[in-house]
Amino acid sequence: MLAAVVRDFAEPVHIEEVNIPEPGVGQVRVKVEASGLCHKDIHAAKGEWPVKPKLPFIPGHEGVGIVEAVGKGVTWIKEGDRVALPWLGYACGMCEYCKSGSETLCESRLNTGYSIDGTHAEYTIGYAKHLVKVPDGVNPLDAAPLTCDGVNTYKAVKMSGARPSDLVAIFGIGGRGHLALQYAKVAGTSVVAVDLFDETLQLAKELGADYVVNARTQDPVEEIKKLGGADAAISVDVSPQAFVHAFHSLRRGGRLVLVEPAGHYVQLPIFETVLNGIQVIGSIAGTRIDLEETFQLHAEGRTKVIYETRHLHQVKEAFEEVEKSQTKGRLVFKL
Amino acid sequence: MLAAVVRDFAEPVHIEEVNIPEPGVGQVRVKVEASGLCHKDIHAAKGEWPVKPKLPFIPGHEGVGIVEAVGKGVTWIKEGDRVALPWLGYACGMCEYCKSGSETLCESRLNTGYSIDGTHAEYTIGYAKHLVKVPDGVNPLDAAPLTCDGVNTYKAVKMSGARPSDLVAIFGIGGRGHLALQYAKVAGTSVVAVDLFDETLQLAKELGADYVVNARTQDPVEEIKKLGGADAAISVDVSPQAFVHAFHSLRRGGRLVLVEPAGHYVQLPIFETVLNGIQVIGSIAGTRIDLEETFQLHAEGRTKVIYETRHLHQVKEAFEEVEKSQTKGRLVFKL
Amino acid sequence: MLAAVVRDFAEPVHIEEVNIPEPGVGQVRVKVEASGLCHKDIHAAKGEWPVKPKLPFIPGHEGVGIVEAVGKGVTWIKEGDRVALPWLGYACGMCEYCKSGSETLCESRLNTGYSIDGTHAEYTIGYAKHLVKVPDGVNPLDAAPLTCDGVNTYKAVKMSGARPSDLVAIFGIGGRGHLALQYAKVAGTSVVAVDLFDETLQLAKELGADYVVNARTQDPVEEIKKLGGADAAISVDVSPQAFVHAFHSLRRGGRLVLVEPAGHYVQLPIFETVLNGIQVIGSIAGTRIDLEETFQLHAEGRTKVIYETRHLHQVKEAFEEVEKSQTKGRLVFKL
Amino acid sequence: MLAAVVRDFAEPVHIEEVNIPEPGVGQVRVKVEASGLCHKDIHAAKGEWPVKPKLPFIPGHEGVGIVEAVGKGVTWIKEGDRVALPWLGYACGMCEYCKSGSETLCESRLNTGYSIDGTHAEYTIGYAKHLVKVPDGVNPLDAAPLTCDGVNTYKAVKMSGARPSDLVAIFGIGGRGHLALQYAKVAGTSVVAVDLFDETLQLAKELGADYVVNARTQDPVEEIKKLGGADAAISVDVSPQAFVHAFHSLRRGGRLVLVEPAGHYVQLPIFETVLNGIQVIGSIAGTRIDLEETFQLHAEGRTKVIYETRHLHQVKEAFEEVEKSQTKGRLVFKL
Repeated sequence: MLAAVVRDFAEPVHIEEVNIPEPGVGQVRVKVEASGLCHKDIHAAKGEWPVKPKLPFIPGHEGVGIVEAVGKGVTWIKEGDRVALPWLGYACGMCEYCKSGSETLCESRLNTGYSIDGTHAEYTIGYAKHLVKVPDGVNPLDAAPLTCDGVNTYKAVKMSGARPSDLVAIFGIGGRGHLALQYAKVAGTSVVAVDLFDETLQLAKELGADYVVNARTQDPVEEIKKLGGADAAISVDVSPQAFVHAFHSLRRGGRLVLVEPAGHYVQLPIFETVLNGIQVIGSIAGTRIDLEETFQLHAEGRTKVIYETRHLHQVKEAFEEVEKSQTKGRLVFKL
Repeated sequence: MLAAVVRDFAEPVHIEEVNIPEPGVGQVRVKVEASGLCHKDIHAAKGEWPVKPKLPFIPGHEGVGIVEAVGKGVTWIKEGDRVALPWLGYACGMCEYCKSGSETLCESRLNTGYSIDGTHAEYTIGYAKHLVKVPDGVNPLDAAPLTCDGVNTYKAVKMSGARPSDLVAIFGIGGRGHLALQYAKVAGTSVVAVDLFDETLQLAKELGADYVVNARTQDPVEEIKKLGGADAAISVDVSPQAFVHAFHSLRRGGRLVLVEPAGHYVQLPIFETVLNGIQVIGSIAGTRIDLEETFQLHAEGRTKVIYETRHLHQVKEAFEEVEKSQTKGRLVFKL
Repeated sequence: MLAAVVRDFAEPVHIEEVNIPEPGVGQVRVKVEASGLCHKDIHAAKGEWPVKPKLPFIPGHEGVGIVEAVGKGVTWIKEGDRVALPWLGYACGMCEYCKSGSETLCESRLNTGYSIDGTHAEYTIGYAKHLVKVPDGVNPLDAAPLTCDGVNTYKAVKMSGARPSDLVAIFGIGGRGHLALQYAKVAGTSVVAVDLFDETLQLAKELGADYVVNARTQDPVEEIKKLGGADAAISVDVSPQAFVHAFHSLRRGGRLVLVEPAGHYVQLPIFETVLNGIQVIGSIAGTRIDLEETFQLHAEGRTKVIYETRHLHQVKEAFEEVEKSQTKGRLVFKL
Repeated sequence: MLAAVVRDFAEPVHIEEVNIPEPGVGQVRVKVEASGLCHKDIHAAKGEWPVKPKLPFIPGHEGVGIVEAVGKGVTWIKEGDRVALPWLGYACGMCEYCKSGSETLCESRLNTGYSIDGTHAEYTIGYAKHLVKVPDGVNPLDAAPLTCDGVNTYKAVKMSGARPSDLVAIFGIGGRGHLALQYAKVAGTSVVAVDLFDETLQLAKELGADYVVNARTQDPVEEIKKLGGADAAISVDVSPQAFVHAFHSLRRGGRLVLVEPAGHYVQLPIFETVLNGIQVIGSIAGTRIDLEETFQLHAEGRTKVIYETRHLHQVKEAFEEVEKSQTKGRLVFKL
């Protein structure tokens, strides 16, 4: 089969012919229909995070496809099911985190396209219990970005505790941000979208943003303070500058949710954190339940996924596009 | 009357003879019995925070005394009542924060010994609605430190969400920390106390700490990880080093509560915050309800306050002692 | 001035000429523009609840009008302001409930149109601190029903903890229910509306209900179970039959919120309550903050109030109409 | 092996010689050391609940013993481990409840000693993933009652949301109540214990109750109201009278937690539920995590289990004793 492979953190990802993998006990083989390209893939391929993947590996963790072969002991999934393969590829099921519904914190977790081979390939292997069924009426090309961008920002909105009368600020309106803003709207909040491009902000408006701020030409802190300050901010933009803006745009008692791992540090001002009663909340990947809810909302017609498709053999160019933030919405490999 | 006065941020606080103040509408005059000396007083007297007090002013916000004169419109408090004057000297009562029980976030709040004259004096003025009655059986010398150190660390334990099966790490066992650890014990948790002095750690043990770590001779992160990691950490030590230790001693899903405003920044690692689902929570001063609960617990014999007394005319030396952290527990001016 | 007066629980409410009241300290006089007629008014006028009003009294607690005269000590409200006078006419401001944002539980609370004279009159008196400003862009005739029906069902949705992926069942789609369903929709949930009349259910659909059930011709429990069961149910219909339906329509872990005080008992099955982990939650009147949020949502165009107007001298007939449930939406006296 | 068997709901449970069972896939065989006798066993043996067990069956769900044989696919548990077999014998692991940490609400759950054979026998079978390891230092005779009485009342205290400054009322101080009161104390609350026997109340005092009320000679509602009313009540006594007492002893905003399934109904007063903002919370069996925490607290020396031992061939008499409430604390079969 064809697969995108990383052999060296210093070299670009490339397409190779590799063997079709066989499902082990508790696993299934999925014929991939769609696989979204996430910033995490870039970090993985470049080995940019403190804990690096073992080389070589196949990146990709927004995979959707049809179950084609079923390993021993699998009862939850059967051939022909359409399933999603998220970032959380495996969790032990027996630790304190798993048993209390916080499986994404499992110390034994395996991440798809990072610690186990991922979905930028014609076929992939998944642990049956950690796959999520894609409901009828959800297009695989929509489902792919929902499997990471969708569920993670949905979870972030949950973690923010945002309620209908709240103002939520979304920093960065790309693949993740355009979904984050929709989940904030679904939760009934008012939304202010912050980005650097008018075209993106125009999209934000079309997707329901109540206010938009162009951080290139306006001061986001000042603009959001004019609106009374944000009750919650969700920063999918990991730059230190975005953190500063998000932090200072908050009202007293506000919550800042970080959803994207990144190798650097940000400067947290103790004085304002304490006096203003601010909470900074790390939110890693949604759970299976979160993803089921994400799909449910999409099946009900309440979210819209913006993406462009690419062929798998365009993988190198696609990685470059995402790295340079040249895309509107998400890139999805259509297989 | 005699009062400690700050006339210049570059000069030490000193004792002056000033006029006895008269209570206005909604205010009362309190004859001070005890006034605790808090680190915030040092910051105030030196003008170290971004927003500085207006000079001259009388510091002190851990005051306890007897109501001696009552202004117009005061129904809540009467002459002869023993009351506490906390850091939150006034809040508007009508804003969103006040009406929802988060008065310490009120944008119009006035802070005792900072934006209004404080309690390091023979007499002081308080807004009747923002005083808290000291119940029978609570000694004024105990009540003074409870009025800031007590209530703030009690609130921090609340904010940490710590439950009986949790491990809570307390960083810094002085005036505040020795109370923080007791509130964590009252809430049923296991406690690990971290400090630089064996003598202080001995006190921590006597007050109920289950484990102690001397950060001078041991690596607190390693020691706490051996215990499984902390579910919550409360850092009353504001140094960047303590923040690093507290942050990294947390288990996945852990909460780090900051209770002391300080003018500097700390370095927050995005990667660990997100991947480990960490929350950093700013907790400013408890409310009146929090202080009532703090006093209730003390009246029930469940907390012990460690302090040494000083005379008010020792104010300059006392400030120096606290600044150099030469005291065990709290210094309290006995009047 | 003209006012609706109750002189005897056995006699119908009637119109009388009474003196225009003068505002005392902390009070204002409001020239009433609109006053909604709530079921609580019927219970009050008939003395049907365990604690009865003192006769004679003026009912009405969904009043909206313009401040015309201001008593001493009022700073929060000025002449010319448009304000709402809700069921919670006064709370002490100093008890544990008031100070923690649960003012509707204040043991000293006074209820408008019950323990103090209400708003079915040309003028009325309100405690300034307990009035809520009606924002520009909210019509007084809309604001009146929002002041009780609106805020109470908004609060009930809050108390239900309903989230976007939840199914919420609303039992009874009249003055309160048509708003309850909108707040459930604002919070992003799916809604099933249950009523006895197809016409009302048609209205429910127009207001956003995803599913409707006619309890006269269908079994609501069976129909809602087909949808997977309700995560939360809000019963504005106080009949024992509605309680049974609401209770048994819940999924495991479901919450049943009761919003309307009524003098009778309902039968709670211990076995199902425990085995299914059900919560039954009493929710009394929203707070001032809740009402501000309710008005905010309406000003943002997110809710629609269905009402018919009556003249104040039609008060007797209007009470009869409401008692017989002959109205669609709310009756509002337009003054 | 010897086992207590129920063959007819109208006949007493009796001892039979039956075959030693073999563990299937994912199961283990446990040599029982101790098995507590719970009221649920009586209900089960008499078929008193709406859903009855299939005859014949072996009751018992507070079992503790040593793993003796391990079925296929078991990795979590090995021979020689000491494990507890709780009421929740099996849950599917894949439903919404299981995946979100609410496994006790699983629609496919199997209950030990009810829907599957239980622990009043020399050997028993358990699903490995649903067993909980008994930590070193916890005596099997203590562990047995903790496995149901302990974990369920621990969970009830959690569900009550009780905090250190709260007053918690425990109704019924027997096998369950004596543990419920200890968990309320561990959580830092003040506790008032209500029972019919002075001897039992004496035990309550020894275990830490701050106040006791004999409901035979005193009015519990009046006595508890004198203390300010209860913030939370936990009723392990299922009688309608206890429900009335527990309900009316609550302060406004209070929570009443029901922990014991029973076939009857109680009368819930709508008026007080709504006006006083009361919550009635059904709490079914704790999860594996809850049981691990329960054992942890016991290993830390923070709880004390009161029990008397019986031989398994005294099973008939033991059932009678428990039914007649003639025991202090729990009866435990020692094998």
